Amino acid sequence: MPYVNIRITDEGVTKEQKQTLIKGATDLLVEVLGKNPATTVVVIDEVNTDNWGIAGKQVTELRKK
Amino acid sequence: MPYVNIRITDEGVTKEQKQTLIKGATDLLVEVLGKNPATTVVVIDEVNTDNWGIAGKQVTELRKK
Amino acid sequence: MPYVNIRITDEGVTKEQKQTLIKGATDLLVEVLGKNPATTVVVIDEVNTDNWGIAGKQVTELRKK
Amino acid sequence: MPYVNIRITDEGVTKEQKQTLIKGATDLLVEVLGKNPATTVVVIDEVNTDNWGIAGKQVTELRKK
Amino acid sequence: MPYVNIRITDEGVTKEQKQTLIKGATDLLVEVLGKNPATTVVVIDEVNTDNWGIAGKQVTELRKK
Amino acid sequence: MPYVNIRITDEGVTKEQKQTLIKGATDLLVEVLGKNPATTVVVIDEVNTDNWGIAGKQVTELRKK
Repeated sequence: MPYVNIRITDEGVTKEQKQTLIKGATDLLVEVLGKNPATTVVVIDEVNTDNWGIAGKQVTELRKK
Repeated sequence: MPYVNIRITDEGVTKEQKQTLIKGATDLLVEVLGKNPATTVVVIDEVNTDNWGIAGKQVTELRKK
Repeated sequence: MPYVNIRITDEGVTKEQKQTLIKGATDLLVEVLGKNPATTVVVIDEVNTDNWGIAGKQVTELRKK
Repeated sequence: MPYVNIRITDEGVTKEQKQTLIKGATDLLVEVLGKNPATTVVVIDEVNTDNWGIAGKQVTELRKK
Repeated sequence: MPYVNIRITDEGVTKEQKQTLIKGATDLLVEVLGKNPATTVVVIDEVNTDNWGIAGKQVTELRKK
Repeated sequence: MPYVNIRITDEGVTKEQKQTLIKGATDLLVEVLGKNPATTVVVIDEVNTDNWGIAGKQVTELRKK
């Protein structure tokens, strides 16, 4: 029954990479906590680099350096 | 004052359906808990089917079956 | 497959009220969007009134007025 | 180490305004709680006005009045 | 820079299991997307079974069956 | 109408500090985006240090070093 939300910057993640993240997160919950994969939900949010900040700076600007 | 976040796959939800979800979720909080509708917020997130997984699989792939 | 997160202040919500919220939110998604209830998840977060603010003020203080 | 999520309607927020929000939220955590800015994350979500409701109504409709 | 939020029911998860979830989720992001582990954040939310619903029912009740 | 969610570790944050965070986040949205404070919601989540990870490690362990 777990719900996993993965939030990352929107920088060319492929459909196959997303599938690997979904499978990996689901397997983790099954292996560590014995959760039922049938009701394990994984949602990936891709966020524009203008909208993501760390250390007070936009990732868009950090990427230029 | 409640905040309700409805996360669904991005599969052609109409503006009218969104309005019905917003009204229905607000009414639910008013009826069950006596909350003030004026400050009840509902936010709907539509997520690409590549980014939503259940049972370790992408919804995009599950829809093909 | 929807995921609904209901965030409210922690002010004596009963187990029965929570069940009514869970049933009501699930029914809403089934009725409006034809979603499968079996994989519809509802999570209720109860938040201390010290930790919830509106109009720049803590709910704890607003409740005193 | 804090994580701040700012959710607003998608109504023409500029890159500069986003930078100001990121800087302001980071400074707030540093000043009030002495948090390390290097690991303070701020994520801004811009939500379509059809998908945001308050008082049971879509913001899209409220904006017309 | 990713942010991963794992939401599970509050049913006796140990400190060691939490550490394994944190390590596993971080490794997943590093391996699949080449993310920097130093700024990868994982937050686990444990939710009371009265507050978690699936298929319109409280997990507390589902556990009794 | 904004919704701001501040997630921090549960390490003795006082009621006054929470009030300062709520006021500061609300003012930020008013000043930068001209938002209406009356419907600006701020929610602070305090998370146990066992449940928060960075760089693949629990904050509980990082604090011991």
